[in-house]
Amino acid sequence: MAENKTVGGGSLLIAWQLKGKKVLIVGGGEVGAQRIDSLLTTDAHIDLVSPSAGLHPRSKGFLEKYPSRITHIDQEFAFIDGRQTTTAFIDVGTYDMVLTALDDNALSRQIVEVCRAIRVPVNAADIPELCDFYFGGQVRDGPLQIMISTNGNGPRIAALIKDRVKNALTGKEGDALTKVGILRTKLKERAPGVGGDVGRRRMRWMSKLCEQWSLEDFALLNEEAMDQLLDEGWEHNAVPLPVQVVGKRKIGGILEAITTDWVRSLPSFTSFLAGIGFAHIVFRLYQARK
Amino acid sequence: MAENKTVGGGSLLIAWQLKGKKVLIVGGGEVGAQRIDSLLTTDAHIDLVSPSAGLHPRSKGFLEKYPSRITHIDQEFAFIDGRQTTTAFIDVGTYDMVLTALDDNALSRQIVEVCRAIRVPVNAADIPELCDFYFGGQVRDGPLQIMISTNGNGPRIAALIKDRVKNALTGKEGDALTKVGILRTKLKERAPGVGGDVGRRRMRWMSKLCEQWSLEDFALLNEEAMDQLLDEGWEHNAVPLPVQVVGKRKIGGILEAITTDWVRSLPSFTSFLAGIGFAHIVFRLYQARK
Repeated sequence: MAENKTVGGGSLLIAWQLKGKKVLIVGGGEVGAQRIDSLLTTDAHIDLVSPSAGLHPRSKGFLEKYPSRITHIDQEFAFIDGRQTTTAFIDVGTYDMVLTALDDNALSRQIVEVCRAIRVPVNAADIPELCDFYFGGQVRDGPLQIMISTNGNGPRIAALIKDRVKNALTGKEGDALTKVGILRTKLKERAPGVGGDVGRRRMRWMSKLCEQWSLEDFALLNEEAMDQLLDEGWEHNAVPLPVQVVGKRKIGGILEAITTDWVRSLPSFTSFLAGIGFAHIVFRLYQARK
Repeated sequence: MAENKTVGGGSLLIAWQLKGKKVLIVGGGEVGAQRIDSLLTTDAHIDLVSPSAGLHPRSKGFLEKYPSRITHIDQEFAFIDGRQTTTAFIDVGTYDMVLTALDDNALSRQIVEVCRAIRVPVNAADIPELCDFYFGGQVRDGPLQIMISTNGNGPRIAALIKDRVKNALTGKEGDALTKVGILRTKLKERAPGVGGDVGRRRMRWMSKLCEQWSLEDFALLNEEAMDQLLDEGWEHNAVPLPVQVVGKRKIGGILEAITTDWVRSLPSFTSFLAGIGFAHIVFRLYQARK
């Protein structure tokens, strides 16, 4: 981030890993439903504590649609004198993350205290000062995920910025990333080993490739083309031109680009015709006057 | 994220809060320098464990430029039979986050084990399966932070997508967010209270405002205009038009927009002239033939 000159005042934006992890959501209302939605993006198992009466229709819908992902614990989360009084005791220590989505801020604070004491990452909706982390606007295309964080300055306005970000993508990015992921796996099979010299050589080659190939070139790769790229590129410590590897498939892409350019130039063409039309009318008027 | 249909397989993108927190970075090489850079965005205090000889020029630069943010612990991090043998004992439990940036993967693994046992969030560079979280490409404009995560499918290619995202922004987003942040603080002063009815009313009003105002409108707000917006809007449960509040300042904006539109329509105008020119030539040729 050397080009982002702002120092201090920001968050550390990170991609938290939840494969094989358990997350506790307390509260199944509107915000609870948003939290479920965010977590469904991951592979976490979700335990949702909420009395049935308090479930938002979206939460109900998620419970019905993803029964293997979400376990519904149909009860209140309550404390008396700091002791949990839930029907079945909920051991916060067995979770990898806890999210509260409650109107009752005092209850939220009590849950956060329990989490904090045993270092379980926690987010308390609507109480930013108690949160280990914030959520933000999200865009996803396969393995590509983009997060827009306003650092608490306006969650709603994040939606406007999210639209701008979405419009900037061509829709090929996710596909390109998937292909690059497969290519890297193939490369690691050819040149195995973590870190060290081989790791650095792999990184250098991938980095040169990414400098010379466009996202759209990567999206055109198939298994055969990847093997060719590794044979002709990696093995000779070179980076083949995209046209050498995805040439045939690229012709389709070029045609598509030409078509797109043609559509883009339509307004200009229309204006050209309008110009002729205008001159034609002037000419007629001139003739009529004679 | 209702519009992002992909379920499973992703990370939970979050904005981690590090104000008043301590982060330990082990390793001051090239990756270590990247980690320092990421953390300087936040308000965390950084302890950097690395023998001076292993410091990358960028790490050295950061140490010189931000002495109040970074403490240099000039030693190796080492274990013998699972026991730490560092000159001065480093108590991992006193940190809120640990990042290893080492070539020695065995050492990284040992540090991760210590962190895991006491639930300190940890990232081990180059060993994704040991990471609680990943880093990604980042864009920042004041309070706006955007993260681009490829879920480990190609950190280099994230740079290409980052460029697309950067180009989609007008540069007014950070300013707009700052203004919205101040407006929300002012609103909370007028109508205090966390959560409950007043919280919901505030959210509804802000949300309506964000639907009807553009980012550029928000960027035009000053203190006076904010007070007017709250007097005429919030107090009457209405959303004034941007022109009513930032009208005078908006004229500048509109002129700018017209100029931009005018520049955008230049190619069409040129084509129109070309059309006239073309018709003129045809007319001359026609006259010459007569």
